[in-house]
Amino acid sequence: MPKKRVSRQVEFPLNRAFTFVESGPVLLISTAYKKKTNLMTLSCHVSMGFEPTLGICLGPWNFSYTALVETGECVVAIPHAGMLEKVVDIGNCSGEVMDKFAEFNLCAQAAKDVAAPLVAECLYNLECRVVNRALASAYNFFVLQGVRAWSNPMPADTRSFHAVGDGTFIIDGETVNLRNRMTKWQECI
Amino acid sequence: MPKKRVSRQVEFPLNRAFTFVESGPVLLISTAYKKKTNLMTLSCHVSMGFEPTLGICLGPWNFSYTALVETGECVVAIPHAGMLEKVVDIGNCSGEVMDKFAEFNLCAQAAKDVAAPLVAECLYNLECRVVNRALASAYNFFVLQGVRAWSNPMPADTRSFHAVGDGTFIIDGETVNLRNRMTKWQECI
Repeated sequence: MPKKRVSRQVEFPLNRAFTFVESGPVLLISTAYKKKTNLMTLSCHVSMGFEPTLGICLGPWNFSYTALVETGECVVAIPHAGMLEKVVDIGNCSGEVMDKFAEFNLCAQAAKDVAAPLVAECLYNLECRVVNRALASAYNFFVLQGVRAWSNPMPADTRSFHAVGDGTFIIDGETVNLRNRMTKWQECI
Repeated sequence: MPKKRVSRQVEFPLNRAFTFVESGPVLLISTAYKKKTNLMTLSCHVSMGFEPTLGICLGPWNFSYTALVETGECVVAIPHAGMLEKVVDIGNCSGEVMDKFAEFNLCAQAAKDVAAPLVAECLYNLECRVVNRALASAYNFFVLQGVRAWSNPMPADTRSFHAVGDGTFIIDGETVNLRNRMTKWQECI
């Protein structure tokens, strides 16, 4: 019988973590509030700087919203293509009535700087703090700063995936290295 | 001799245009200011609503910044994978010293509601107006509202592509339809 794969995130250089989200993959947002962890699926986000800084959109209709607003913390996790159906299902049920880590058989690994857990099976995890809420009421937009980064040294699949918004998803295809054409390849904007 | 393909954008339902950007593709931003058009490459953006509303990050180091700030208008275009090298090169030179539409042999098709031109060869174009600048000084972040949408009925390639941020790019792979798992598939957040 094959040994069950046990995922375990290892620390990753924080100054390279802006590369986790710039391509626009579907994310899992992990929160912890009042001794209860939760997960939500999120596709609307933006890389805003190399610290890393990123922006995410989520609103009061998301059960995770209160946890994010009250704690000012979360973990941003990047799931791999082998998790696609599970991630869609996570986005179509509510943490109000279940423990999503248990329900979806995901390993909650303790983070170091925030109370929300890492999702051990994911490609990457980024511990984050909310640093700006100026557009929270008008656009449900929160600016996060990453404080600690993690990666999975042996992911079951190395591809991420993207939401079109119409119920279809695009899995990563070919990667093309064009560094030789870039005059300033570290800059995303 | 094969006839040269001539691209021409046709109008597209505005209420479905949020699907243009949610997957996080690399964009071209087209502007017009003081009778001069320009293009820039941009990968840091976010879908913020179905109107459609989107956020983009660009700063004073981009020559297009002044055009966007002064006119409050732009066109957001989604290039296809066949344009990858051209789009990278557009992002690695300045409109201050050249006419990028001419330099890169791209067809500037007149928009209807903004002065900036559509990029006819792209998959989609979205005419946009800046509607919020609250995070412009702190994060170089502008909120845009789409006012008219366009699509290319015969693109040379139907795949978009994504920037990782380290000089590599991911071309769209397989598309998976999971509408049957979605309870609210029109919602991106």
